[in-house]
Amino acid sequence: MEELFKSFDKVHKAATVLAKSSDSERQQALRSIAEALNSKKDEIFAVNRQDVENARKAGIPGAILHRLEFSQEKLRSVSGGLCELALLKDPIGRTREKRELDPGFILEKRTFPIGVIGMIFEARPDALVQIAGLALRSGNGIILKGGKEATLTNRFLVEIIKKATENCSFGSDWILGIESHEDVNCLLKAEGSVDLLIPRGSNAFVRYVMDNTRIPVIGHADGICATFIDESADQALAVKVCVDAKIQYPAACNATETFLVHEKIAPSFLPVLNKALTEKGVVIHAAEDCLPYMPGAVKATDKDFHTEYLDLECAVKTVSSVQEAVEHIQSHGSHHTDAIITRDKANADVFVSDVDSADVFVNCSTRFADGFRFGLGAEVGIATSKLHARGPVGLDGLMTTKWILTGNGETVAEYSGPDGKPFHHKELV
Amino acid sequence: MEELFKSFDKVHKAATVLAKSSDSERQQALRSIAEALNSKKDEIFAVNRQDVENARKAGIPGAILHRLEFSQEKLRSVSGGLCELALLKDPIGRTREKRELDPGFILEKRTFPIGVIGMIFEARPDALVQIAGLALRSGNGIILKGGKEATLTNRFLVEIIKKATENCSFGSDWILGIESHEDVNCLLKAEGSVDLLIPRGSNAFVRYVMDNTRIPVIGHADGICATFIDESADQALAVKVCVDAKIQYPAACNATETFLVHEKIAPSFLPVLNKALTEKGVVIHAAEDCLPYMPGAVKATDKDFHTEYLDLECAVKTVSSVQEAVEHIQSHGSHHTDAIITRDKANADVFVSDVDSADVFVNCSTRFADGFRFGLGAEVGIATSKLHARGPVGLDGLMTTKWILTGNGETVAEYSGPDGKPFHHKELV
Repeated sequence: MEELFKSFDKVHKAATVLAKSSDSERQQALRSIAEALNSKKDEIFAVNRQDVENARKAGIPGAILHRLEFSQEKLRSVSGGLCELALLKDPIGRTREKRELDPGFILEKRTFPIGVIGMIFEARPDALVQIAGLALRSGNGIILKGGKEATLTNRFLVEIIKKATENCSFGSDWILGIESHEDVNCLLKAEGSVDLLIPRGSNAFVRYVMDNTRIPVIGHADGICATFIDESADQALAVKVCVDAKIQYPAACNATETFLVHEKIAPSFLPVLNKALTEKGVVIHAAEDCLPYMPGAVKATDKDFHTEYLDLECAVKTVSSVQEAVEHIQSHGSHHTDAIITRDKANADVFVSDVDSADVFVNCSTRFADGFRFGLGAEVGIATSKLHARGPVGLDGLMTTKWILTGNGETVAEYSGPDGKPFHHKELV
Repeated sequence: MEELFKSFDKVHKAATVLAKSSDSERQQALRSIAEALNSKKDEIFAVNRQDVENARKAGIPGAILHRLEFSQEKLRSVSGGLCELALLKDPIGRTREKRELDPGFILEKRTFPIGVIGMIFEARPDALVQIAGLALRSGNGIILKGGKEATLTNRFLVEIIKKATENCSFGSDWILGIESHEDVNCLLKAEGSVDLLIPRGSNAFVRYVMDNTRIPVIGHADGICATFIDESADQALAVKVCVDAKIQYPAACNATETFLVHEKIAPSFLPVLNKALTEKGVVIHAAEDCLPYMPGAVKATDKDFHTEYLDLECAVKTVSSVQEAVEHIQSHGSHHTDAIITRDKANADVFVSDVDSADVFVNCSTRFADGFRFGLGAEVGIATSKLHARGPVGLDGLMTTKWILTGNGETVAEYSGPDGKPFHHKELV
């Protein structure tokens, strides 16, 4: 334990050097990591096969095995992602505000890395590479704890990444892999070395982290996402979007779990939605008034409207207005991603204004809630709380700011009292 | 207690209406409050005299009585502040990012109020008016708990503010005053109605709040601020700034507590600093090697360098370089506000880059760390943590964002796989 805290300190020290490294050095480091991963790919795949084999023997379900597998396609995708991150504008040292308080007395709000991020995530080795890349690009040290099924792959990936940056000014200590539950409990106690925790997982796990640490936490929790099909919706477009939102990747947190349908279009729309979803094998839990239009559907209970299925299942109910749809989402949703399908601009505006979620979409699939699709390069998670970062968290969410005030000997006394000089507060950006 | 939770819910409901109110309605409301305060000023002063009298009888020290007193000058200042807030650009609905993912498929990150803020602050009735003004301007509901010595004044001020907005679309429930410790404990449990807590006070109090709530907290804690006088400093300028930083308002969190002096200028600078500060009645705790140059100074212990005096006292020591100054600040400071006095641009850059504080100043007084002086209109506090808001928290710190994606029936399936359409991610702002 003492040893581990020392390792956290080392990450902290390396992070202070990383924070000052040049844009081009970090860009080059990302490319070196991508090259190293490609040159070691056969070894990576071999180690990963061992993890998959162990997981299979342990009876881990297929969906998780699929996420655990580090395929050629995933390697191509993450190494491409590292090169794309290198091309994104340097997030360090950007001016967010600049104001002259008085001639020659300049205030600037400038971005700096947060410091050291502790990241706890599922058994997805490709996620490890993405997260490490985001940390490096944003100048933050990173401590990684992936799902235990991926232990061997993760250990090897961290080794490759460390090796690829060992000749950089910031060395290889900016990244550290940890493995056990005990290690995680140490991490939660590492206030002082660790500046931010990002746990991905169930609500219960995120809550456990929040309740057991004094380090700030950005929680990536449940996604109970809804799509509301308004009276004025283009129904063909609506069906296409609903199918995508439910079945394109049902295990994702941004998949739609609840469909809210305007009661006026229930007789025409519900049978079409029912057919499209059941053809794809979706089990439908429908409110009583929907059942006549949805043959084969199961009668929904209130619990269904609070459920994140993460599977080929969904809940359906009718609402009488956009306001009722908003109320349902506010009381049943998880403030993640919700969509309206409508041709009525006023209703779209009400929905966007009143649904208090990180992502609010009009006429498209909830599945677009994603850092890469948003153009953020990648994401470390999707934040559902309202502070600091909300929605997909990319480079920006890993930055803090400092206020830098540069003067020529100014004192507050000169600007105080009835005869004090006034501030002129002239905006410079 | 049940009643109080119902009141919190009412604030929450009013806040959702306030969040949608127009810029001009909120501007007018701020002006109405300023007018109402001015028209009731004699009654306010009478009630406030009662609070002051009660506090005096209870043996409350003079500095606190001074803050408790609501004078004509303070009234003029806060009502002027309300009118200035009305003139600041509307913080609601601003576009922070805008990007076309593909032609006609538009992503926008737009600002929205956080919701309901719970604010706990000292016995300063003028602060109540400022905080209420910031909440209203930013479209947030506010629950206020001021220091108990100001109970009568605060109760009356909240009554006046409520009355002044009762004919607005959002009514008068957007603001609520609470009074007892029990009320505060209810507030800490009001997850669901309250979105953010901002406690001002000692580190211990902020810690108590953080440890006893699941609501996010922006802590305004201690200010152990340092001013480093570098070898190349203009010494006359340095003395002027140091005196201001220490004595202009020693009870403020942004007053300098520690002076770090480059060892090479110790023989010339320390005697001058000693004279200037002792003339103003400052008690100096100096490290041993400074004592010969600072007649009358007390020998400092390590504790002095960890102390927030909030009074006419300070600690002084020498350092051998800007790096040593940075190290001292990193290990002894509170990441609030620190300054360097130098003519060496390279040393200023090192200081700005390496001191990990909310405010890092060059050649001016630490006392400038303040929302009004920064041009933010006012502040609800000075945040010393790194997430969401850092430094003086004005309107921006009271906003969250939503990602709004507007399309024409796009599905993720179309953009996936080897034949998927690419995103073009064209920046629009």
